[in-house]
Amino acid sequence: MPIDMTDPTTITGEMPIGARRVRGEAGCFRALDPATGAMLEPAFGCATEADVARACESAHAAFDAYRRTPPGIRATFLETIAANMLALGDVLIERACAETGLPRARIESERGRTVAQLRLFAARAREGDGIDARIDGALPERKPLPRVDIRMQRIPLGPVAVFGASNFPLAFSVAGGDTASALAAGCPVVVKAHAAHPGISELVGRAVQAAVLANGLPEGVFSLLFDDGFAAGAALVAHPAIKAVGFTGSRRGGVALMKIAAARAEPIPVYAEMSSVNPVFLLPAALAARGKALATGFVESLTLGVGQLCTNPGVVLAVAGVAFEQFKDTAAALLAARHAGVMLTPGIAAAYASGVERLHEHPAVRAAGRGEAEGAAAGSRAQAALYAVDADALLADASLGEEVFGPCSLLVACRDLAQMREVAERLEGQLTATLHFDAADHDAAQTLLPVLERKAGRIVGNGWPTGVEVCDAMVHGGPFPATSDGRSTSVGTAAIERFLRPVCYQNLPQRLLPDALHDANPLGLPRRVDGVPTQAPIK
Amino acid sequence: MPIDMTDPTTITGEMPIGARRVRGEAGCFRALDPATGAMLEPAFGCATEADVARACESAHAAFDAYRRTPPGIRATFLETIAANMLALGDVLIERACAETGLPRARIESERGRTVAQLRLFAARAREGDGIDARIDGALPERKPLPRVDIRMQRIPLGPVAVFGASNFPLAFSVAGGDTASALAAGCPVVVKAHAAHPGISELVGRAVQAAVLANGLPEGVFSLLFDDGFAAGAALVAHPAIKAVGFTGSRRGGVALMKIAAARAEPIPVYAEMSSVNPVFLLPAALAARGKALATGFVESLTLGVGQLCTNPGVVLAVAGVAFEQFKDTAAALLAARHAGVMLTPGIAAAYASGVERLHEHPAVRAAGRGEAEGAAAGSRAQAALYAVDADALLADASLGEEVFGPCSLLVACRDLAQMREVAERLEGQLTATLHFDAADHDAAQTLLPVLERKAGRIVGNGWPTGVEVCDAMVHGGPFPATSDGRSTSVGTAAIERFLRPVCYQNLPQRLLPDALHDANPLGLPRRVDGVPTQAPIK
Repeated sequence: MPIDMTDPTTITGEMPIGARRVRGEAGCFRALDPATGAMLEPAFGCATEADVARACESAHAAFDAYRRTPPGIRATFLETIAANMLALGDVLIERACAETGLPRARIESERGRTVAQLRLFAARAREGDGIDARIDGALPERKPLPRVDIRMQRIPLGPVAVFGASNFPLAFSVAGGDTASALAAGCPVVVKAHAAHPGISELVGRAVQAAVLANGLPEGVFSLLFDDGFAAGAALVAHPAIKAVGFTGSRRGGVALMKIAAARAEPIPVYAEMSSVNPVFLLPAALAARGKALATGFVESLTLGVGQLCTNPGVVLAVAGVAFEQFKDTAAALLAARHAGVMLTPGIAAAYASGVERLHEHPAVRAAGRGEAEGAAAGSRAQAALYAVDADALLADASLGEEVFGPCSLLVACRDLAQMREVAERLEGQLTATLHFDAADHDAAQTLLPVLERKAGRIVGNGWPTGVEVCDAMVHGGPFPATSDGRSTSVGTAAIERFLRPVCYQNLPQRLLPDALHDANPLGLPRRVDGVPTQAPIK
Repeated sequence: MPIDMTDPTTITGEMPIGARRVRGEAGCFRALDPATGAMLEPAFGCATEADVARACESAHAAFDAYRRTPPGIRATFLETIAANMLALGDVLIERACAETGLPRARIESERGRTVAQLRLFAARAREGDGIDARIDGALPERKPLPRVDIRMQRIPLGPVAVFGASNFPLAFSVAGGDTASALAAGCPVVVKAHAAHPGISELVGRAVQAAVLANGLPEGVFSLLFDDGFAAGAALVAHPAIKAVGFTGSRRGGVALMKIAAARAEPIPVYAEMSSVNPVFLLPAALAARGKALATGFVESLTLGVGQLCTNPGVVLAVAGVAFEQFKDTAAALLAARHAGVMLTPGIAAAYASGVERLHEHPAVRAAGRGEAEGAAAGSRAQAALYAVDADALLADASLGEEVFGPCSLLVACRDLAQMREVAERLEGQLTATLHFDAADHDAAQTLLPVLERKAGRIVGNGWPTGVEVCDAMVHGGPFPATSDGRSTSVGTAAIERFLRPVCYQNLPQRLLPDALHDANPLGLPRRVDGVPTQAPIK
């Protein structure tokens, strides 16, 4: 393999595929600075079908060796990726700002989160989290039939296709949560870069590639593909070597991938995080006691990242009355002072404008507030928007509850708490549901909670849904259409489990057993032995 | 609710739906004794769409209350079902023999397994297995941003549709593994009885119904539906209240359910256990040393239950040569003395005959042995069959590797170990893969094992795949088409996890948290607290 003499901070337009850099020849594209409308150099070559196949076959070839690396090696590998990302320094930060229109402080904080995420997955990989080792010893004397020795561990599914998200160019992208959890599980990863930030993707992709090689891992553990259309992504999901898919994006995009995955000769799981309006319930005592503070918090959450967060509070419910009217007026006044923010891409800005228009034209919906219009005409900027509707209308027309991606929210006035519960019961699956309550609201909260548990992956008390902590207890998931698979999370360490499957070893001698299941417990794993959880070796 | 005065051992033809007994009015059917061809009384009424809806709505209505019952209550409920099944005594055994043609000893042993399975799931439910409680405490001083308290548990998915299997009228049926694991997880269950054994299904269904009522659980926790066609099952899977499906049966049936589930407004997971040829690899030293014993074991496994086991050894691979020829001759001689067995249904017998015919007519396949023909003409009986083929032909025509459900197996002669590995690499997903080896074969086994881990849910050493132990470490699953979802198992206690999803609780006061996540740990669960596994309460 020729030594790569290119400065890791130089963006070349080439794709890291295995140990190589490959210029895609299926057309080319450039990134756009959404704040200025300027095209950014260089040009990126789109992956051909052969490039996709090469990445997938390389991942397949790497799989058996990579999945059998000791947990410590995988952990060090993840930590090397984190270090390599940090070593890119300002070059990465500046390119990320240019390709997304997001402010520097946000990008820096997202880099911090991405690095911390890699390190947390490294820590859990080192512990062997998810391996779930179980041993049921032989019972030669059992009647009527003896039992032979039976053991189980979870092994990785195989190469995983990851799609970079538009709205988190680092944390949900090339070395983001899906990649980190798949690599921690022992799966090679092939990333399809988001077309809006190929430069960030190349920089981070080469940081991962360098970490693969520096740790002596098989080159196919990681590859990156460019394409500004759908062909490479579709070919990737359809490739027989790919065994699971991670995606964060639109409902339409996620459903399209689900269809491709289901139509394969061997259908595979898709973890698509798609669409959520993240309902917020303002319970009566809380709303009466601190409506103004709630309105302030709401507008902060609504406009964070120009509303381009999957956990954006798109629906707010309360019992109709003076307190809710005051909340609306306060929120509207705060919103009026908000500048129109730069959206990630012209396409997202156009979809936002049409989503707002749809609400605006709806006969049952009342305009309740707008952000500053200044600059909103300039293609990629979004003027925040607040609308109001009665719960009766929402119950009559479920389309009012569909996501408008961006800083737009719908205030829903309910007749009473019973109607609020009825609306909750009619919600589609959500990433989050938020309750604001005082002590006097506890009974009302108790009534809503069982419904919200069925509808959402995360229930937030007296806070706002935006801001997703990376930790063991986080769930960033939820029933369809919040995700394609509500049995899992894409943030937090439980994400590792998405990429594992159980394998049972019956009556195998020690020499043929995997390390996790040796009597001596050489990996020091927590195991269930003859029904009892223990970390002790078997004597 | 009127008290049910009917003797629980009387078969009425009515469906237990919630607390009621309902006579279906969408046509009717009777069971058949496959050994005699005689129709059995009484007639069973098929479920109307309204019956299906009633069962599903009743399950939905029961869900919130049932899922919040303490683990001990659910455990007692499962134990009551086991006791009620045993209390049916000979009536159940005799009806099961009549409806399946299986011998009494087999049915008694299957009842024992089913009862033990219910009790094992009860034990794990009592421990709170699968709840996976995690707590990340608040970090108010953290910079740059504080962290609020974040907790997680797994909650049940919702009502589960279970389809009874033809080949295990007790263990994979009304109160079988899918039902037991779903109930243990906290999901209400609606069972579609297999049309071949409605009488067994009614008896067991009423045993479950009585256990629901005796334990004071909401009536919708369990319902049973009859239909000898596909309408009720299809309506069941399509019903919005149903949140997951458990199925054991044919590939065609499983794929049809996958399609219905994927086409719903809210797609839901399907756990279908479908199709597997369970390859057996006879490694050279073992084959040379004990070919005769291997042939004996093979014929026993092949003909067990008239070959109607999902783990039936349908393909046997070895390196071509004298030892494999002797194995074939020994197996053929043993097979020639095997009586034609009664198959479960005329439909299964017809499918078996046509599968054998397909092999017989294939130009590359050589007939290698047949069981006794006596009685084989009588519709429901199966004459065992052994065929031989070269690995080259199998590699050229993958259809030779498709399952023939029944006592038929294909001996595959490989050029060498490398070709044996090549065949393994080309296999579809399997429930099991079996290796016979001596110490001198360890290297060959080491070469095959990584491939088999990718292909199968269970790897058996020096044994036979038939016979699936119910324990913590068992995996009865595998990549498609062995199952629709290789991330799970349908036998063993890990089956509980199929029916759970994680929910996160952010910044909720103790009073609003579920018991599993209270500081005091009132359920005594193993939890991960601030990254560290512990059973201790939080002070």
